[in-house]
Amino acid sequence: MGNLFAERMKSVHKSFIREILKVTEDKNIISFAGGLPNPKSFPVNEITDAVSKILSQNGDEILQYSTTEGYLPLREYIAERYSKKGLKVSADEILITNGSQQGIDLVSKVFLNKGDKVLLENPTYLAAIQSFGLFEPQFISVPLLEDGVDIDSLQRILDENKIKMFYSVTNFQNPTGITYSKEKRQKLAEILKNEDIVFVEDNPYGEIRFLGDDIPPVKAYLEDSVLFGSFSKIVSPGMRLGWIVANEEIMEKIIIAKQALDLHSNYFTQRAVYQYLIDNNIDEHIEKIKDMYRNQRNTMVSMIEKYFPENVEYTKPEGGMFLWVTLPEGLSSMDLFELAIKENVAFVPGQAFYVDGSGINSLRLNFSNSNNEQIEEGIKRLGNVIHELMN
Amino acid sequence: MGNLFAERMKSVHKSFIREILKVTEDKNIISFAGGLPNPKSFPVNEITDAVSKILSQNGDEILQYSTTEGYLPLREYIAERYSKKGLKVSADEILITNGSQQGIDLVSKVFLNKGDKVLLENPTYLAAIQSFGLFEPQFISVPLLEDGVDIDSLQRILDENKIKMFYSVTNFQNPTGITYSKEKRQKLAEILKNEDIVFVEDNPYGEIRFLGDDIPPVKAYLEDSVLFGSFSKIVSPGMRLGWIVANEEIMEKIIIAKQALDLHSNYFTQRAVYQYLIDNNIDEHIEKIKDMYRNQRNTMVSMIEKYFPENVEYTKPEGGMFLWVTLPEGLSSMDLFELAIKENVAFVPGQAFYVDGSGINSLRLNFSNSNNEQIEEGIKRLGNVIHELMN
Repeated sequence: MGNLFAERMKSVHKSFIREILKVTEDKNIISFAGGLPNPKSFPVNEITDAVSKILSQNGDEILQYSTTEGYLPLREYIAERYSKKGLKVSADEILITNGSQQGIDLVSKVFLNKGDKVLLENPTYLAAIQSFGLFEPQFISVPLLEDGVDIDSLQRILDENKIKMFYSVTNFQNPTGITYSKEKRQKLAEILKNEDIVFVEDNPYGEIRFLGDDIPPVKAYLEDSVLFGSFSKIVSPGMRLGWIVANEEIMEKIIIAKQALDLHSNYFTQRAVYQYLIDNNIDEHIEKIKDMYRNQRNTMVSMIEKYFPENVEYTKPEGGMFLWVTLPEGLSSMDLFELAIKENVAFVPGQAFYVDGSGINSLRLNFSNSNNEQIEEGIKRLGNVIHELMN
Repeated sequence: MGNLFAERMKSVHKSFIREILKVTEDKNIISFAGGLPNPKSFPVNEITDAVSKILSQNGDEILQYSTTEGYLPLREYIAERYSKKGLKVSADEILITNGSQQGIDLVSKVFLNKGDKVLLENPTYLAAIQSFGLFEPQFISVPLLEDGVDIDSLQRILDENKIKMFYSVTNFQNPTGITYSKEKRQKLAEILKNEDIVFVEDNPYGEIRFLGDDIPPVKAYLEDSVLFGSFSKIVSPGMRLGWIVANEEIMEKIIIAKQALDLHSNYFTQRAVYQYLIDNNIDEHIEKIKDMYRNQRNTMVSMIEKYFPENVEYTKPEGGMFLWVTLPEGLSSMDLFELAIKENVAFVPGQAFYVDGSGINSLRLNFSNSNNEQIEEGIKRLGNVIHELMN
């Protein structure tokens, strides 16, 4: 069979994180390696009520096949929510996906020919590298600054390359926690307006801003761009519900690709989440998640200040679930990982998030899925092994 | 944007069935056009109990992210069920998909390079044509006889072509209702054993055999082949749960592709369906579905005998949801469709299921989603318009 595998499978491998997570499944390990929401944030009782309600009222219907686009009232709800956040879209411009990750597959199918140039932030979401990778593009990467993409580098790359697609996580990026400023979003939109480029804005964490003010998505300034959203971080990731926002011309193609892929997303959970949303105050629920994550993030930042050497740099995210650490040049986070595991602490070495092999001295820390006690103890141990590595 | 779409999107269009279904949404139309299970077959109360149970016992866990392969006890259940049906597979050889349709995308990703030759039955499942089509293969088609693929034609095609993949629906095929005999399965396996070909066996209807005896899947005779299964026809299609069975070498690649595609299938419904399966007698439930569909199929067959002209041919399926009608040469089922719609009866013209433009005089009738009264009246009207067309 081995000789029959497609070319595209040669370039991709099992997720590095996946392999690391296996190492860290041990209950004794304090793990900052995963990317899981805190299960304490799941509205279990409310979901139970919603599910009972829809099953008793419309059982036959919600267990049946449904439309490729997704449940219309749910799409209308999403459109309405965007309008409150400064983005005008219609329900027809929204399609429900099996988690927002599926959006990457769908836009790749719709736009990418083999060898097309896809621009990625450096570093970027690891699973995006894998998902795009299956379409055999040529990856080009652009550096990130504290307030988003480095505009000068971007301009130079655009001048020198015919880029087909630019994929960006604009809020509390996984892995760095970096958020694009409003000015940068506007500047980016201005530049891209004149280019024949598909801008894909992935925004799974946008609702979890626990510090500072919300900023409209780039799509608010760049109509033709594609935007992904998700219920994974505010309701439940196990239900696999995300969405794509795109104009009608693009959406027509996305519908075709989605229909060929899996007919439609899980209708049962679409109905359950919709019922949950209209019967409850989602904003109050999100506030609780924000309080939880803000607290954990603050603990992590203050513990890093206390225990990490001074020449170690780190981001101070205003939302999301991750914090990014940069060791002094010359140090390797893989070496640090080996030492940390011996102390029963885990994280993800940063190199995995780069397509150009750089980032050797960086690492990603997740704060959403550990309590304060674990964070205090884990960061203390990590500080010790960083000191050890530097000596 | 239009100039940025990928090459692959040029070859696919919105589903013809989908467009037809829109026409037939009118409540006054008796529709044999769809492919829906009868909603009366959905175990609404039992699913309600299962969902309440898992939410109260493991709410935090079932709403969280999970593994790419799918819930292990569910995969073990599926493996165990196969072993009772003459197929030995382990849970490690099973991955849960977002409906079995997603299996087509995954095997295409794993095996197909652009231009590879994919062999399809003529006619075949329409959505398979669309799903494979996005990988830009060259389609070759092989005729179906009453007991499965035409072996002579198959042998000739294999001699003359380097076929990469052969996709087959071996039980109660959509659209024809044709089932491979045991002898044909064995013969097919014997031939394919000596070829470097991926045999993909799609089996969404296999559990719904209402006449005759179960026959083991081709995979029972051809270890390296890939098999798809589904809960859509026996529990609920809206929950989008299917699976792929493949050996470990292939499965390793499928896991990579699945992880890149959408991380994992809906965990909430995996747990719900598993709880339903272990708390209930699924075989008793399937018997009820069989009784229902056997009755509807018998009504359709006897009404066709009564109302259709003698020179119209049709299949007499032993299971599944479809029956296939062939009009005398020279007649067009598209013309018949125009006449039928005026009489408020709908079906799917058969040409859509052929990749070579043939099948102009064929049509597909669905019997699972109409009651006996509708079937009697609908077939009567259809008989009238066939007579009209022939005059």
